[in-house]
Formats: sequence, structure tokens, C-alpha cells
Amino acid sequence: MSVRLERLEEFATNCLLQVGLSETESRQAAVALVTTDSWGVHTHGLKNLRGYIRRLREGGLNPKAKPQIERQGPAWAILNAHSALAMNSSICAMDLAIEKALQCGIGYVGVHNSCHFGAAGIYASRAAAKGLIGIAMANDTPTVSVPGSRTAVLGSNPLAISIPTSEPFPFLLDIATSTVAGGKVFHAATAGQSVPEGWIIDNQGLPTTDPRLFPDNACLTPMSGHKGYGIAFWIETLSAVMTGAAIGNHVLSWSFAPGHQHTQHGAAFIAMDVNSILPREEFDRRIAELIHQVRSAPLALNAALIQIPGEREWRNRQHAILHGLDLPQDVQAPLNQLALETGLEWNEPASS
Amino acid sequence: MSVRLERLEEFATNCLLQVGLSETESRQAAVALVTTDSWGVHTHGLKNLRGYIRRLREGGLNPKAKPQIERQGPAWAILNAHSALAMNSSICAMDLAIEKALQCGIGYVGVHNSCHFGAAGIYASRAAAKGLIGIAMANDTPTVSVPGSRTAVLGSNPLAISIPTSEPFPFLLDIATSTVAGGKVFHAATAGQSVPEGWIIDNQGLPTTDPRLFPDNACLTPMSGHKGYGIAFWIETLSAVMTGAAIGNHVLSWSFAPGHQHTQHGAAFIAMDVNSILPREEFDRRIAELIHQVRSAPLALNAALIQIPGEREWRNRQHAILHGLDLPQDVQAPLNQLALETGLEWNEPASS
Repeated sequence: MSVRLERLEEFATNCLLQVGLSETESRQAAVALVTTDSWGVHTHGLKNLRGYIRRLREGGLNPKAKPQIERQGPAWAILNAHSALAMNSSICAMDLAIEKALQCGIGYVGVHNSCHFGAAGIYASRAAAKGLIGIAMANDTPTVSVPGSRTAVLGSNPLAISIPTSEPFPFLLDIATSTVAGGKVFHAATAGQSVPEGWIIDNQGLPTTDPRLFPDNACLTPMSGHKGYGIAFWIETLSAVMTGAAIGNHVLSWSFAPGHQHTQHGAAFIAMDVNSILPREEFDRRIAELIHQVRSAPLALNAALIQIPGEREWRNRQHAILHGLDLPQDVQAPLNQLALETGLEWNEPASS
Repeated sequence: MSVRLERLEEFATNCLLQVGLSETESRQAAVALVTTDSWGVHTHGLKNLRGYIRRLREGGLNPKAKPQIERQGPAWAILNAHSALAMNSSICAMDLAIEKALQCGIGYVGVHNSCHFGAAGIYASRAAAKGLIGIAMANDTPTVSVPGSRTAVLGSNPLAISIPTSEPFPFLLDIATSTVAGGKVFHAATAGQSVPEGWIIDNQGLPTTDPRLFPDNACLTPMSGHKGYGIAFWIETLSAVMTGAAIGNHVLSWSFAPGHQHTQHGAAFIAMDVNSILPREEFDRRIAELIHQVRSAPLALNAALIQIPGEREWRNRQHAILHGLDLPQDVQAPLNQLALETGLEWNEPASS
């Protein structure tokens, strides 16, 4: 059953209003989550709303918190999110990075007292929509080994980069710095499948293909070994070491830690203003040349097309705008529970 | 046979003086190349000096060029390297990024009319030595496929990140965005070995383990597939789209293109001033906490230790400072040729 995006946004907005967020913040966070689902990234959208609502009810997140600039300079700022819902504090931080970049060409904003911020791409693409290059990253509770360890040391520390283009969509890269996201391992376990060698290691630090060991007796591996490890370390530095957020194993799990606890995540946002540096038309011509080179490369024997990162997400969203979203079972289930708990309905026909 | 670093620096300096670089620039570039070898990164150090000298003699590089700021703002600049030796123009660019960061907190400098700049880590670690986080990246002539292509579309676009620490060495990550560097494939071909599946694809776009096909009938794969592709695209944007450098297949090969041609590489440098954002002592305490967590993780069954990125390179350099450098055959060979061509000696005993 397809549900219109507006309907989903309304449901999420009303859920958040019910736990005390303002109208503006509720709608902003709702749009962020529904946009994530509309991209096809169902692991980081509405599926998690019930968990966020639980923390908002139990005190781990504060529905009345207003993110606050603690320190700043011409091209940087450190924001205390005061445990606001991280969609809101992250949008606030990215918008501040954009403001700094419009003044100086480039801007960095680090955030502490944050929580799980969902899809990093939401914030990066916010910059691209305004003609800036955007970067968003965050730390998380450890689930990923480092080369030589048998246990998780760093989070799957996500990195998103978005670049304005001459196309109807921005370039958008949104990746975990682990080989694969933990969600894929859970999915394989549920489906009774094994995972390819290289995705996880067991509690001796040896490769295993049994997804049921994760996360208690296995952890993810860093993407490309030392490369992902190094990038995740850099993300930990910009998100946590620089900002005052919890570092590494001091970050609590937003889904497993008791609902009254602050998870103390950190995040970082960088914006670069294209138009400060070269005329937008010239940038557009030059990025079009790059995209043209990529797209016109001869196809591999078993390939159907070459895509620009962000193209698939944009196509998914165009489809969802026209036809509504068919949410997978593992998103419907928590939404159904949330509907019971709030007395709100998420899947009623748009015409009723 | 071990040769003292000072001896190698003197040789490289004199070679560069001979083709018309200034004393200061010759020494600066020589130290950059020898430092790279002292890290154990022999693919990007003195091995390439003869190739650079050839371009300096034949006009593809200009020994008298002075990099010039074309446009700038509070926290950014675009530099025209005018085909100077890229060690010099890249140091100039990173130093300017550092200056911008000291003023604004963060700074970006893009460079065009550059050439192969050797090890990106040289420039990133220059920032870390001054208490700043440094990032260096560059585009290159295509050798790497994108997901779905059968040919090379992007360069192995290197990325280096360096972070000051409380240790005697800075964090230093210096990676290609391909699965492996092309040098490793050449090495396997020379040694008569096959390469692991996943490193390269053949001219149909299918996996192959035959390194002899590279580069004419095979190309490298991007690290972690779409992840490396996306990061390389971002590097191409910051290094070339933003700067006016050649894009993708318009970049010439610094080693294969005729010596009189300008390769038109682009590069980008970002610095973040730690001390503008938080007191250095606090940063040191916090980065020490992160390093402590990484190092104290329980070891995997078959692992001997966990290293911080940059630690191995630093240990290699400490050893080379004390005992000199034992250069591999494939570095000695071009140095011997260069010695013949210049009448200078690189391997005479230090006492002679």
C-alpha cells in the first residue's frame, strides 16, 4: 500500500508535537525523516521515529531544547545541541555552516550533546540545494573494529558529501565508514542468510560469515581496512574531539541505552560556497563536463548504466512524490506500534 | 647500502639547482621527496625525481615559475601554479591554507596548472606540525573505473589527512581512492604474480587477476566500489572543477605524456586551526583519550599490535634518521641514471 509523503509527514509531525516539540521543529524533523525514506534509505528514516519519541518522552532527548552557539569565529562555531532531537540540531548546525561559508567561503560547525542524526545526506544536501558543497559526519557508539582489534572500537561514523550540479539533482554520497552498515547484517540474520567474508569478524577477531553473532559476538570491519579506519578516526576528531562530545566507547547507543540517558553523540558540518569562489555558471559548465565524462564511459559487460551518486535517491524521490511510498515491513511495524501509542494514524487513505 | 638522509637531500637539491630551480625551492622539494622515502613510501619519493627533472628540462614544468594567487577571500584562495614543480606549489598552497585557517578557523586553497605532487601526506602533515588539521588531495589522469564502466574514468585521486596529537607523531592517513595503488599492480606484474580478485578489471569490465593487462587493457577499481568512486568525484570537484585545472581525462600523465606538455593537474588543501576552536591542551587530552581507546582494544588472534595511522611512517623515519635509508632497487635504478645524466653522485659514503 502506497502512502502519500504529505500523509507521512503529517503523521510524524503530529507524533513529535504530541511529545512537546514546537510546530516548526516537528515539521522540520518529520520532513527530514520522510525525505530519507523517499530516497529509499529506509534504515534511517521513519523506522527510527518510535525510538526518538521514546527518548523524547523519557528524557534522553529534550523536546524543549534549543541548540546554542557556545564559541565561534569567522568561519567556525561549536554548537551545544542540549540533547535536542538531532534532526533539528543538525539542520541548525548545517545552516550555521552555510552562513559562515557565505561570509568566508568555507565554514565548519561542530556539535556536541547531539544524538543519532539519521541520514547524514539530509544535512549535506541541504547545502547543495543552496548552491554550496556540504559535508556532514557524526560519531556513534562503537560497532566497527580497527585493523588488529577483535572488538568494536569506533562507530560506523557516517560521511555524506553533496555537491550542486547542472543536473536536476545534486551529487550525493552518503556512506558508513564500515564495510557495510550494521542494518545489512541484521537483515541477513533475519533472512537466515550468511554474509560475505569481510563484512564482520567474530570475538576472536577472525572473519566469520554468521550474521547471528552480530552485535554481541561479532563486529563490523572498517571499509577497505586501514582506509576506513583512518577516515572514521578523522570523523571522530571533527565530531567529538573538537566539540566536547563523548568519544568512542563513551557514546551511548541511541537505540539500546535506557531512554532517560543522553547519548552524547557528536557531529560536524562543513559548507563551501561555490559562488564565492567561482561564478556559478562556470562551476555548472565544469561539473557538467565531469558528469559527462563519467556517464559516457563505455559500459562493463554486465552493467546497464553508470549513475552519478545521488541520482538513484533522486529518482526514488520523484517516484514517491508522484505515487506515494510503499514502506517495507520493518518500517511499517514500528509505525503501527507508534500509531497505537499515540492514537494517530499513518496509513489512512489520503482522501479520508 | 644505507645512505644518510642529508646526502640524499643534497643530491636531490643539486639536481634541481642544475635545472634552474632556486636554492630555496630545490631544497624544499628535495626534503619533501626524501621525507616521503624516509616514511617508507618509496613509490612517491626520489623514485620520481628523474621524471620531474625531465619535465623541468623539456618545458612541461617551469623551473622559474612562481605560484600566484588568482582570487581569494577570507578563508579561501585559488592558486595558479604556473607549472612549477608541484612539491613547491603544493607547499605554497598548504601554507596559504594554514594562514587562512589561523585567521578564520578553517581555510581552503585550490590549485590549477599543477602536476603530480608526490605524497599527499607531505602537505597534510605540514599543517599538523603547526598544530592544524591538514587535508590534501589531487586529481590525476584516469586509471580507475567507476561502478558500471569498463575503462578508467577518474584518477586514483589521493587523499591525505593529518591531525596533531599528544604523541611524538601526528595522525597521518594517506590513501589512494582506488582499491590499491597502480604501483602494486606493476609490482605484481614484474614479480610474475597474480593479483587478488577485486583489484583490477579487464577491458570488458570483468574482474581479472592478471596484472600484465594493466594499464593498457585493465584499470584499477575504486576502493569499496561506490564509496571510493564518490570520494574520488568529490576530490575531482575540489581539485579541478573549482580551480580551473584539467578535469578527468583532460589531465595528462606526468610520467607518460611528452616532457614539454603541461599536465594541468589540480589539487586542494584544507587546514583547520585546532587552537582557534579549543585550547590545545584540551584538544591534546581529548585526542589522547581517543588514541588510548584505539590502542587498548583487545587484539585479534593473529594480530601483533594496533597502530595509529602515521605511527609506522614515523617509526620508519626515526630509523632512517639514525641509520640512513636502504633504498629499494626500483628507486636506485632511476637515481643511478640521474647520477649519470647530472654528473652528481647520490650514494657516495657520507665520510668521503
